[in-house]
Amino acid sequence: MSNPDLMGYEDRRAKEIWAQLCPKDQHGADAILDLHSTTANMGLTILPSSKHPFNLQLLAYLSEIDPSVRVCLGEHYGNDAPMLRSLSAFGCTIEVGPIAQGVVNARQLQQTEMLVHAILDYLDAQNRGKPLPTPSHLTVYQAIGSIDYPRNSVGELQAAIHPQLQFKDYEPLHPGEPMFLTFTGESLPYPGESTVFPVFINEAAYYEKHIAMVLTEKQQLQLETA
Amino acid sequence: MSNPDLMGYEDRRAKEIWAQLCPKDQHGADAILDLHSTTANMGLTILPSSKHPFNLQLLAYLSEIDPSVRVCLGEHYGNDAPMLRSLSAFGCTIEVGPIAQGVVNARQLQQTEMLVHAILDYLDAQNRGKPLPTPSHLTVYQAIGSIDYPRNSVGELQAAIHPQLQFKDYEPLHPGEPMFLTFTGESLPYPGESTVFPVFINEAAYYEKHIAMVLTEKQQLQLETA
Repeated sequence: MSNPDLMGYEDRRAKEIWAQLCPKDQHGADAILDLHSTTANMGLTILPSSKHPFNLQLLAYLSEIDPSVRVCLGEHYGNDAPMLRSLSAFGCTIEVGPIAQGVVNARQLQQTEMLVHAILDYLDAQNRGKPLPTPSHLTVYQAIGSIDYPRNSVGELQAAIHPQLQFKDYEPLHPGEPMFLTFTGESLPYPGESTVFPVFINEAAYYEKHIAMVLTEKQQLQLETA
Repeated sequence: MSNPDLMGYEDRRAKEIWAQLCPKDQHGADAILDLHSTTANMGLTILPSSKHPFNLQLLAYLSEIDPSVRVCLGEHYGNDAPMLRSLSAFGCTIEVGPIAQGVVNARQLQQTEMLVHAILDYLDAQNRGKPLPTPSHLTVYQAIGSIDYPRNSVGELQAAIHPQLQFKDYEPLHPGEPMFLTFTGESLPYPGESTVFPVFINEAAYYEKHIAMVLTEKQQLQLETA
């Protein structure tokens, strides 16, 4: 996204959305659903706007009605200002993948629509004073850091995601297992000392952010029930 | 690709390549290998520059050493001027997919390298006067036309590729089988009267060309053997 015209467009859209969702002297949007596609094999992933109990209960509800939905928690909250979801404490980003840019996949479109409808039903029930019952636990993938591609001294890629790891988002990666394959054919293992669950593996938009994958830990949260 | 800066870049590159491959008073490049990625599930597909017997023998050789390689023939030859491969009668376009724009897939990269090396080996043997033996037959997918997405009167998409057809490039599509799924949930069947083998299903760059897929017929060609 180094083209100056495209940067101008994104800047302008960000300001328009800000003006629409956060008018002066108000507290911002009530809730935000921000829909993203990704080239990584993220299936349907929800990243909440905050760890507020209401958000976590919503996520537990969604995980119960569709166990294929996964929940990712960011490393930091409050200071993730570049994200649209940061304009409200309530709501989430929905990531859908794997899918290439500029194409429509009918199945993923249907799954996303169902998820959005489920979220709107949940918010609507809350607004009507009849909150839907939620489970007392929630499985989350807590981000703990990210890893860049191996690069040379001028920043050029020296390796790709290892074929054994490609599309294996949310599967356990154990110490010593293959992580990258260099362009000269050498396998580079995961150098960490504990098992992690990589996500956003080979996301196109993250090459420029120096992120080959985000590492997470799988956790069970106990929640208050609604 | 409607951004004027990017159009300028592509125009400029086309002129540079033309000047390099087709200098004045010469007949053009000896042979051209043009490498493309695609969001369609094309595996490794070869589209020859012409139906010249030398090209067809090369394709038969490649199909024999790697049976997963498929060969597509265009509808027209001689007037496919927008393609780089048209600058020489010899050589081909290699399409590799499915892959999203802007990502490296290690397995597909390795497969592409092996195919390029096999082609160079074949050309080298020919140049040394020791042509490699080639089989006497070749399976090809002969393009017979293309189909656009259903659109409304102002050209907006009204449907996506049907989930049963998505990623099913090179598989037979029989009359009446699902082809599109409209955004209101209606299945639209393939309206043709004979079985076809669709390719380039849901290629991102073809939305603007009004091509949802290219229809082909599967054919066996008998060849002179080298």
